[in-house]
Amino acid sequence: MPQSIFGESEYERRIDKTKERMREAELDALVVSDPANMNYLSGYDGWSFYVPQAVVLTPDREEPVWVGRGMDANGARATTWLEEESIRAYSDDHVHSPHDLHPMDYVAGVLEELDADGGRVGLEMDAYYFTAKSYTRLQENLPEATFEDATLLVNWVRVKKSDRELDYMREAARISENAMQAGMDAIEEGVPESEAARAIYDALIRGTDDYGGDYPSIVPLMPSGDHTGTPHLTWTDREFEDGDPVIIELSGCRHRYHSPLARTTFVGDPPAEMKDRAEIVVEGLNAALDAAEPGVTCERVEKAWRDVISKYDIEKEERIGYSMGLGYPPDWGEHTASLRPGDETVLEENMTFHAIPGLWFDDFGIELSETFRVTSNGAETLAEFPRKLFST
Amino acid sequence: MPQSIFGESEYERRIDKTKERMREAELDALVVSDPANMNYLSGYDGWSFYVPQAVVLTPDREEPVWVGRGMDANGARATTWLEEESIRAYSDDHVHSPHDLHPMDYVAGVLEELDADGGRVGLEMDAYYFTAKSYTRLQENLPEATFEDATLLVNWVRVKKSDRELDYMREAARISENAMQAGMDAIEEGVPESEAARAIYDALIRGTDDYGGDYPSIVPLMPSGDHTGTPHLTWTDREFEDGDPVIIELSGCRHRYHSPLARTTFVGDPPAEMKDRAEIVVEGLNAALDAAEPGVTCERVEKAWRDVISKYDIEKEERIGYSMGLGYPPDWGEHTASLRPGDETVLEENMTFHAIPGLWFDDFGIELSETFRVTSNGAETLAEFPRKLFST
Repeated sequence: MPQSIFGESEYERRIDKTKERMREAELDALVVSDPANMNYLSGYDGWSFYVPQAVVLTPDREEPVWVGRGMDANGARATTWLEEESIRAYSDDHVHSPHDLHPMDYVAGVLEELDADGGRVGLEMDAYYFTAKSYTRLQENLPEATFEDATLLVNWVRVKKSDRELDYMREAARISENAMQAGMDAIEEGVPESEAARAIYDALIRGTDDYGGDYPSIVPLMPSGDHTGTPHLTWTDREFEDGDPVIIELSGCRHRYHSPLARTTFVGDPPAEMKDRAEIVVEGLNAALDAAEPGVTCERVEKAWRDVISKYDIEKEERIGYSMGLGYPPDWGEHTASLRPGDETVLEENMTFHAIPGLWFDDFGIELSETFRVTSNGAETLAEFPRKLFST
Repeated sequence: MPQSIFGESEYERRIDKTKERMREAELDALVVSDPANMNYLSGYDGWSFYVPQAVVLTPDREEPVWVGRGMDANGARATTWLEEESIRAYSDDHVHSPHDLHPMDYVAGVLEELDADGGRVGLEMDAYYFTAKSYTRLQENLPEATFEDATLLVNWVRVKKSDRELDYMREAARISENAMQAGMDAIEEGVPESEAARAIYDALIRGTDDYGGDYPSIVPLMPSGDHTGTPHLTWTDREFEDGDPVIIELSGCRHRYHSPLARTTFVGDPPAEMKDRAEIVVEGLNAALDAAEPGVTCERVEKAWRDVISKYDIEKEERIGYSMGLGYPPDWGEHTASLRPGDETVLEENMTFHAIPGLWFDDFGIELSETFRVTSNGAETLAEFPRKLFST
C-alpha cells in the first residue's frame, strides 16, 4: 500500500539517515512517537494517535517495529511497508485501563526483546502524544536503560524533501489555492463564519479533478472582526459584518503533506490605513522570499522582513515562518528550523518553509503567507494566489 | 463571551468541584493541560494546543490562571470568563526554541508566584499535549515541589453533565443525524471515498437551520472494503465497489460537545451472513442500552452485550463504549469510565456514553453505535437514526 505513495527505496533512505543520526547520538534504540515521524519511517497512516503508539528502531534490525493497539494492527498491515513480524500490538485492556496497565509497559517489553533494555534509548521527549506518563512508565519498566532526549532527531531528517514529497506538496498547493478561492467567494456581509468554513472544507476535500484532498492537520482558521488579533480561534455562527477584517489560514493536504496559505480580506471597503499596512506586509514577505537561497541562514531571511517593517517603525516579536511538510493534528510544522532571530540553520535546496508574517494592530490584523521550497539559487513558492489585501 | 455559552454559575460549580477533589488529594496546585479540561474550567477555546499551555488552580485563588503563548492571550480574553490578571502569556522565543527555553519554564514561574513551588503540585501526567519534556522541565525548575499524578481529576468532574451541556450534546446529535444521512446518500458504487467524506463534512459544518456545526475532535472515519477491519484509517480516493462493506463513524459538534454515531452500510446487496451478524450487533447494542440505568456498573452494561454475542459463539476483547462529551482533537472520549469487564464505575443520572460495539470478521466488520444519557431510570439515546445494516 505505502509503496504506491513512496517506493521502498525512499523508506530505506529515510531509515538509513535516521540510523546515521542514531549512531552519532550513540543510541541503542529510538522510540518514535510523533505520528508524522511514525508515518515518515513506516508509512503508517491512521487516526489512532489518541492512544500511545510507537515505531522502534534499533541499529541492527533492518526494519523498524511498529507498536500499537490491537485493533490498529490491521491498519499497520494495510499502510506500512513492514513485514508481519515487525508489527506488534497490545491488548485492549491497556487503553484507558482500570487495571493500571499502560501501552508503554508493552513498548518496554518490545525494547527488552530487542535487547535495548540496558542501553541508551532515545525518546521524543517533547513530541505530541508522548506524555509524561509514557516516559515514567518506560523508566519504571526499564531501570537499566539510559534515556536520551531525541525529540527532533527524525524531524531533522525530514527537513529536506525528496522529489516525490515535493510532488505531494505541490498537489496540496493546488488544493490550497482552490480552498482559498472558495473562502474568498463565500465571505460577505451577513454570511455566518461557519458558511465560509463549510465552503473551504468542501474545496479542501474535493481537491482537484485528478485527486481528492486529505484532512489538514489544522482546521481552517478564520479570525474575523474584533478577533483578527486572536489568530487561533475557530469559526462560529457569527455573521460577517461590514467593516470586518477576516484572516484565512488553511492548507490543502495530500498524503499528509501540506502547503499552507494565508490571506486577509475585508468585508466592504478597507480603510486606507489597513491598505497601507497590507502593502507593508506584502513588501516584507517579498523581501523575505527574495532573501531565501541555499547558504543563507533562517535568521537572515527573517531580517529581510524585519528591515522592511522597521522602515515603517513597526516591531514584531513573533517568528515569521517555520519548516513544514508532513503532519498530523495538531500541527503541520516540523518544529525544527524557524525564520527568526537566533536561528542559524543554513538553508539547503529542497527545504520547505511556511513564511507567514503578520501584523496586528488594535483594530485589525493582517497575515499573508507563502509556502516555499528552497531552490538551487532562490525560493519557489508552491501556490499561486494574488499577494494582496482582498475585499468583498 | 463564554457566558453566552455557559453562565458564570456553571463555571463556579465546576471550579468548586475541582477544588473539592484537589482538597481530597491534598494538592497545593493543579496544572491542567488537557485542552478539554482547560475549556471546561475556563471556557478557553482555540486551536493553540499545538504549543504547551495550561490552566493553573490553587485552593485560595478564586479564578484559575490561564497560561499560554503571547499571540493567544487575546484568544483567552475573548473566550474565557477570567479577569485580565488571570491571563499570563509567554514570549514567542519559548516556542520550538533554539535557545533552550520551554513554555513550562514560564509555567514554573507562575507556580512560584502562586506560592505553590514548594508544595504538592498535581499534573495531568497522561493528558494529550503534556509531554515528557513538559514534566522534566517543571521538575528542573521546581526542585522543592512534589509532583502528583492528577491525570483524570478534572475528567471525573466532567462525567455528569449539566442541563446546558446536555442541550449542546442534543444539538450535536441533530448534526450527527444529518451527517450520517449525507454519508449514506453519497455512498454508491464508483464514488470515491473522499466524495462521501466531503458530503459528511458539509453536513457537519452546515449543522441545522438554527445553528452551524463546530469541527469534530475526530475526522469522519470511513473504513471500507477490505479495510472494515481497520477502524482508524481515513478516507482515500479509492472508489466504492460493489460488494464493499462501509463503516461510518462520525460526530456532530456544538460548542465542543459531541454526540458520536456509527452505522454500517453495504455497496450492493449484503450477503446473508453479514445481515445475520448485523442483527446480532443490533440485538447486543439494544441489550446494553436496556441494561443501562443508575446504580448499575459499567461492566454490567458490557455483560448484557457479551451475553448476547456469546449465545452466537462470538467473543470480543475490545471495550464497547466510553464516557464522552466535551473534546478536542485527537479524541472526544473522557478517558474515565469504559463499558468493559472490570470497570466497576456505577452509572449515575446524566452521565453520557458512546456505546460502540462492533464485530470484525475476515471479510467484513460491522459497527453500530449510540450516544446515550443515563436517565433517572434507564438510558436516552441522543440521536434518532435507524438501528440496522444499510445498503446502497
